[in-house]
Amino acid sequence: MSACIFCKIIKGDIPAFKLFESERVLAFLDIQPLSRGHALVIPKHHGSKLTDIPDDQLEEILPVAKKLVLATGAINYNILQNNGRLAHQEVDHVHFHMIPKPNGQEGLGIGWPAMKTDMDKLKELFAELKSKM
Amino acid sequence: MSACIFCKIIKGDIPAFKLFESERVLAFLDIQPLSRGHALVIPKHHGSKLTDIPDDQLEEILPVAKKLVLATGAINYNILQNNGRLAHQEVDHVHFHMIPKPNGQEGLGIGWPAMKTDMDKLKELFAELKSKM
Repeated sequence: MSACIFCKIIKGDIPAFKLFESERVLAFLDIQPLSRGHALVIPKHHGSKLTDIPDDQLEEILPVAKKLVLATGAINYNILQNNGRLAHQEVDHVHFHMIPKPNGQEGLGIGWPAMKTDMDKLKELFAELKSKM
Repeated sequence: MSACIFCKIIKGDIPAFKLFESERVLAFLDIQPLSRGHALVIPKHHGSKLTDIPDDQLEEILPVAKKLVLATGAINYNILQNNGRLAHQEVDHVHFHMIPKPNGQEGLGIGWPAMKTDMDKLKELFAELKSKM
């Protein structure tokens, strides 16, 4: 945690363009934005992945993301939270991106390699997951 | 709303592989998955974009996404919520994707056209957004 760049931003050891702060969350500009207004919302609770954050520390995240959307005036936008290197996570402190999508070039690029619908496989998977929920 | 496919799933007029349901949210399998375990969490409150959903109807979304991650056993995964056609939204009822990323081919594809850091522009943007938060 002492090496975590986002924990340092929370503590004020590293400067950031802080847009919103409460007891549980912090929002600030991404300084390598994908588009104008690209900002992050993070829980102050340190944790690498979504499952590491207690539920009550997550409740305020999406309401604050809404505030960012409204401040930027974004019409098209993506909310994205990456977990793990394979899934494009670069900082190991949970962070939610609010990325305006002003046009086809700027903002998040999305690849959508949808699989064919296979009802038998889905039924099987459903039974397995349902038993684990 | 009467034409909304997700509202029909909530009402039970269309079948779905429902994994979790509470007063405020519903989670079910995506039947055109990007990877095994790809599932959706939606607020029952109908709204097209994130800013259309009242804060209290959003609080439970991420805790339920956590449940999906744990049930699937995903190690790498993306949480994604798209707003607007340009940003790849296809159904106009707010939905959060939980997409396992088991390997480079399956799961969400991400394009990351980062802009160069421009501190002067960021300072200007910060002043503008801060006044609107």
